[in-house]
Amino acid sequence: MIVIMKPGATAAEIGAVIRKAEQMGLKTHPIYGDSRTVVALVGDLTGITRESFDVMAGVLQTMRIQEPYKLASRTTRPDNTVIDVAGVVKVGGPEIVVMAGPCSVESRSQIIEIAHAVKDAGATVLRGGAFKPRTSPYDFQGMGLKGLEYLADAREATGLPVITEVMREEQVAMVAEYADILQIGARNMQNYGLLQAVGKVKKPVMLKRGISGMIKELLMCAEYIVSNGNYNVMLCERGIRTYETATRNTFDLNAIPVLKQTSHLPVVADPSHGTGLRELVPAMSRAAVAAGADALILEVHPDPDQAVSDGRQSLTYKEFATLMVDVARIAAAVDRNLAVFTEDAVHVK
Amino acid sequence: MIVIMKPGATAAEIGAVIRKAEQMGLKTHPIYGDSRTVVALVGDLTGITRESFDVMAGVLQTMRIQEPYKLASRTTRPDNTVIDVAGVVKVGGPEIVVMAGPCSVESRSQIIEIAHAVKDAGATVLRGGAFKPRTSPYDFQGMGLKGLEYLADAREATGLPVITEVMREEQVAMVAEYADILQIGARNMQNYGLLQAVGKVKKPVMLKRGISGMIKELLMCAEYIVSNGNYNVMLCERGIRTYETATRNTFDLNAIPVLKQTSHLPVVADPSHGTGLRELVPAMSRAAVAAGADALILEVHPDPDQAVSDGRQSLTYKEFATLMVDVARIAAAVDRNLAVFTEDAVHVK
Amino acid sequence: MIVIMKPGATAAEIGAVIRKAEQMGLKTHPIYGDSRTVVALVGDLTGITRESFDVMAGVLQTMRIQEPYKLASRTTRPDNTVIDVAGVVKVGGPEIVVMAGPCSVESRSQIIEIAHAVKDAGATVLRGGAFKPRTSPYDFQGMGLKGLEYLADAREATGLPVITEVMREEQVAMVAEYADILQIGARNMQNYGLLQAVGKVKKPVMLKRGISGMIKELLMCAEYIVSNGNYNVMLCERGIRTYETATRNTFDLNAIPVLKQTSHLPVVADPSHGTGLRELVPAMSRAAVAAGADALILEVHPDPDQAVSDGRQSLTYKEFATLMVDVARIAAAVDRNLAVFTEDAVHVK
Amino acid sequence: MIVIMKPGATAAEIGAVIRKAEQMGLKTHPIYGDSRTVVALVGDLTGITRESFDVMAGVLQTMRIQEPYKLASRTTRPDNTVIDVAGVVKVGGPEIVVMAGPCSVESRSQIIEIAHAVKDAGATVLRGGAFKPRTSPYDFQGMGLKGLEYLADAREATGLPVITEVMREEQVAMVAEYADILQIGARNMQNYGLLQAVGKVKKPVMLKRGISGMIKELLMCAEYIVSNGNYNVMLCERGIRTYETATRNTFDLNAIPVLKQTSHLPVVADPSHGTGLRELVPAMSRAAVAAGADALILEVHPDPDQAVSDGRQSLTYKEFATLMVDVARIAAAVDRNLAVFTEDAVHVK
Repeated sequence: MIVIMKPGATAAEIGAVIRKAEQMGLKTHPIYGDSRTVVALVGDLTGITRESFDVMAGVLQTMRIQEPYKLASRTTRPDNTVIDVAGVVKVGGPEIVVMAGPCSVESRSQIIEIAHAVKDAGATVLRGGAFKPRTSPYDFQGMGLKGLEYLADAREATGLPVITEVMREEQVAMVAEYADILQIGARNMQNYGLLQAVGKVKKPVMLKRGISGMIKELLMCAEYIVSNGNYNVMLCERGIRTYETATRNTFDLNAIPVLKQTSHLPVVADPSHGTGLRELVPAMSRAAVAAGADALILEVHPDPDQAVSDGRQSLTYKEFATLMVDVARIAAAVDRNLAVFTEDAVHVK
Repeated sequence: MIVIMKPGATAAEIGAVIRKAEQMGLKTHPIYGDSRTVVALVGDLTGITRESFDVMAGVLQTMRIQEPYKLASRTTRPDNTVIDVAGVVKVGGPEIVVMAGPCSVESRSQIIEIAHAVKDAGATVLRGGAFKPRTSPYDFQGMGLKGLEYLADAREATGLPVITEVMREEQVAMVAEYADILQIGARNMQNYGLLQAVGKVKKPVMLKRGISGMIKELLMCAEYIVSNGNYNVMLCERGIRTYETATRNTFDLNAIPVLKQTSHLPVVADPSHGTGLRELVPAMSRAAVAAGADALILEVHPDPDQAVSDGRQSLTYKEFATLMVDVARIAAAVDRNLAVFTEDAVHVK
Repeated sequence: MIVIMKPGATAAEIGAVIRKAEQMGLKTHPIYGDSRTVVALVGDLTGITRESFDVMAGVLQTMRIQEPYKLASRTTRPDNTVIDVAGVVKVGGPEIVVMAGPCSVESRSQIIEIAHAVKDAGATVLRGGAFKPRTSPYDFQGMGLKGLEYLADAREATGLPVITEVMREEQVAMVAEYADILQIGARNMQNYGLLQAVGKVKKPVMLKRGISGMIKELLMCAEYIVSNGNYNVMLCERGIRTYETATRNTFDLNAIPVLKQTSHLPVVADPSHGTGLRELVPAMSRAAVAAGADALILEVHPDPDQAVSDGRQSLTYKEFATLMVDVARIAAAVDRNLAVFTEDAVHVK
Repeated sequence: MIVIMKPGATAAEIGAVIRKAEQMGLKTHPIYGDSRTVVALVGDLTGITRESFDVMAGVLQTMRIQEPYKLASRTTRPDNTVIDVAGVVKVGGPEIVVMAGPCSVESRSQIIEIAHAVKDAGATVLRGGAFKPRTSPYDFQGMGLKGLEYLADAREATGLPVITEVMREEQVAMVAEYADILQIGARNMQNYGLLQAVGKVKKPVMLKRGISGMIKELLMCAEYIVSNGNYNVMLCERGIRTYETATRNTFDLNAIPVLKQTSHLPVVADPSHGTGLRELVPAMSRAAVAAGADALILEVHPDPDQAVSDGRQSLTYKEFATLMVDVARIAAAVDRNLAVFTEDAVHVK
């Protein structure tokens, strides 16, 4: 850490900074410039906050020169984390995994039908919401436990592992009972109780970036999960909130190579939320794979007109099938390929 | 709601929109322009989402012309909601309430000492965090239950009612046992389970705007609480995340008159988080009161240098005392005055 | 346009809106709902602003349902505009054009050497700044006219057409003398005098999106150029300013398919500025082409360490050559190919 | 400046950084930590950019510890700059100056009438646009030279000095002929040619913050003017672009105390653009003065319904008169008062 003193800071103020740092077990390196003095602190800064020095008399500001996350960092673990999903697919390896399905589970027959359709087009994980965080208390809030059961039925019918959102700590055990991947939604990125709870289960977790989450905050939230024992965390870019209103969100594809370079955890891209507009999803799915994403998560619905939620950004079966062909070509152009579902890999529960 | 058809939409597509709306019990008004057709929908739109029409063939976009919140709206309830806090002060009436105290409860003696100090300077509510949401899992997470007990001790000693944050659904009952106002933090603005839980208790709630929360989303979140039965909700502006880095957050004071005009709920301003810098807090406290805030919540610490969190934005006792004098002058200039603590109003538990 | 009246608007107020619209030659369609009245206006709204009605008594708000740009819109002109650059390459057709070179022209030998190097790697347009807009008045401001002459020398030596920035109206004639494409920088997106000036020359223009420009504003600025007679406008996505600081800008790739769907003008992507970090440029160049960009503009420098500006985001020759191979594979995967320089196409001045 | 080396940087790489810095005349202080090495550079860094080091092999990042503006900084000049406007009022001293008038000059009689009205209510400077930067090329672009003449007529009639916008370098001499304060609009904050041009005239300048301008960029732009010889620069906060859409802009009042603490230049607040909504202007005018603004600039129109631009945010005469009374009370509460127009101070041209 670097502590920058104000112009005119007194020797006593500088001395106080040095003593405080030394009491914390740090080595100090004061540098006396013409108009300013700077004190560099070296050692184990893991538990030390900038605030400890920011507030001292004579201090202008502090700067941290090491990232505060540790277990999620590629420095700590240079090799990619590869996450096995129910013995069916691996996320983070050479193959690109496509997760697809409706925004919300609407009925048993609906989810089973969609599962077959997306499997036919090449998806290897089924998505579907049972618990829905909705902006309005008057909107549809999801089917709940019934939805989880229907997802399990769809898995039974097709062999596709299932990803679904868990919104509350108290639901973690129940959702983990049914799901193969637990999704933490954007609104809950910093719901630390929930992060700790999913850190204690054995199922893979997909953590979505908050709508105004910084990349380093996303990594700190992953750290909450990993430091509780669960290393199987996928990071999901799903668009951020900016001033631009032509799209529902601004899809920050820069985050994909940044996360790949900074962390060993796999990166999932969500072009459905990243754009909010069905007609942009194919182009941005291609772009996400070209940028290095390990997986895509996509909303697909047989009749978006009748979807209870997110219809505007859901693909029809036909659009999804076309997209899969196009994305496979991009995958090949970056020396990867789409994961393929093989019957003998089927998850038997 | 207004449904705008694409140029070239067919009569069949327009007809489908009209039929769907009529099945929902709405009256329809198609308007045929030279290049576009628009269908206006009139009636009770409370449970109807824009998505229902957005996804239909031939539809370009939809626009809503009524706010989706209802119980929190001033249209529904023209008079200000005035919230009685433990029989000691009222928030939302002519008096301006100042809540002050440390970011975190650090010890029994610390919180009691600060309570006396802020009371002496004119504060009428004591703030202090027992459960702390922290970006890093390695940071101090608060004293927990012990912190709640110490807050209760400080109330006992001074008579000041207490506001403290509740972070998880499962803590609501426990925190409500000790606190006079339950605070929902910015990261939890859209933690709907938590909102519903505090909607079912009898204690006043202060709901903080999320770091990227839109004003209308803040009102929708208030609606989650109010629609569960608890009308005693204060809305808190605490700064939003923008590209500007000179301050910790961008303090959106525009939100104060917008909220006062749109809703009947009281508005609290948090200049400590709104700026993140102690030296800006006095100016922005004055500005918030001049803009119409009903209350201020401020971080005060006897020795910010030693604070375990948020020291950079905490006021010293002396700075706080000076601020109170200056704010009282602004209050007078807008025909209000600071709430005063009277011994006979003391909350006896 | 839709004019939404306040609840409780009087018949006289509604009548005033109707009369005003009719005086403007519009047809009006009042719709009387239970709690609100809406007046739809139909006809030629080109010269009519929302403000005319926003301000009237009893009006709550207005909404526009047609885009305000016209000549730049794909509705007006369904086929892609294909821009011939000096008879050497075409931008907006099936081929993807790569423009490359240093941020700033630093010397005659430097720019000629780089021109050869980027041509060898497959670039077909040379970029280089002669006039540099710099945040600080104390920074290097570019070589000016000398820089233009050196660019022309580099064109002479290699046959590559040249793109360079024009910062001021008074420079337009001079820069047009030397450059094959006039670049309008992000800071000048809304410098309307400059836009009108380049609208009157015969050279192609590349218009960069402002650092906080909305997509529709970018199109309005293109409209300023096109409506002055110059249809040869390329739109350039170069990253926007958001709260994220891990990258210099947030590269808004969503803008690429949005612009391609909304407008007939070609779209250029600038991954150098879009990321600000050399190590992200290859991934984001691939992503931009996968998303549908018609061209890339990239910063390349033989020794970024010694570059006078933007070294942090400049590629070395070797990195650029590798990138070109990778981008060509992505181009093939979307049924396009990189433009190739053919000697007989050489621009003879 | 601080140069942070990558983990694993070689001694040769560190040596190269040190040699380069020493060639630049800087003193260097290498600090060898357990996992990282940092090199602190001390000396005159005015002409040295971070880029020079950012790009070197083995460098992770650099950090600047001194602000890059100099003449605009309060460190350089501790006392407030007080700007005399045409001998009539002083901006930056104890008195608060209110500038008021229409968005656009619409006719000779209009501007004279408004000048009398705002003078009667207590304004001491007349605002009015002759050249209007408009988002659409099809919108009203201002009256131009005629508008300037009418403004001069209104000054003649009332004695009020005049502020008006200059949009282009070539207009500077002409506008300076008529105006008492030259306004640089938000879209032109970084139009460096224009900044240099107004830096060479003798008239005071009001520089508006760009819609996405950072506070430090605003100060750098002021530096462009001041370093050209014109110290009479007022900084204007007029709202920034964020994700919030309830208001036209987010009025960043934090900027007022930040600018007052960082710079010696006077600060003007523009609540009309800062909110975009007439009903918010009174509250935010009070807030701006409470936060420390030295002046307000406000849009006033006799019949906003008929205004050719910005009617939605213009105050009526009556609203303006009420606002002036309320703002005077806030001024008194911060020990200031509104500037008063005295006949013998009248500017005779």
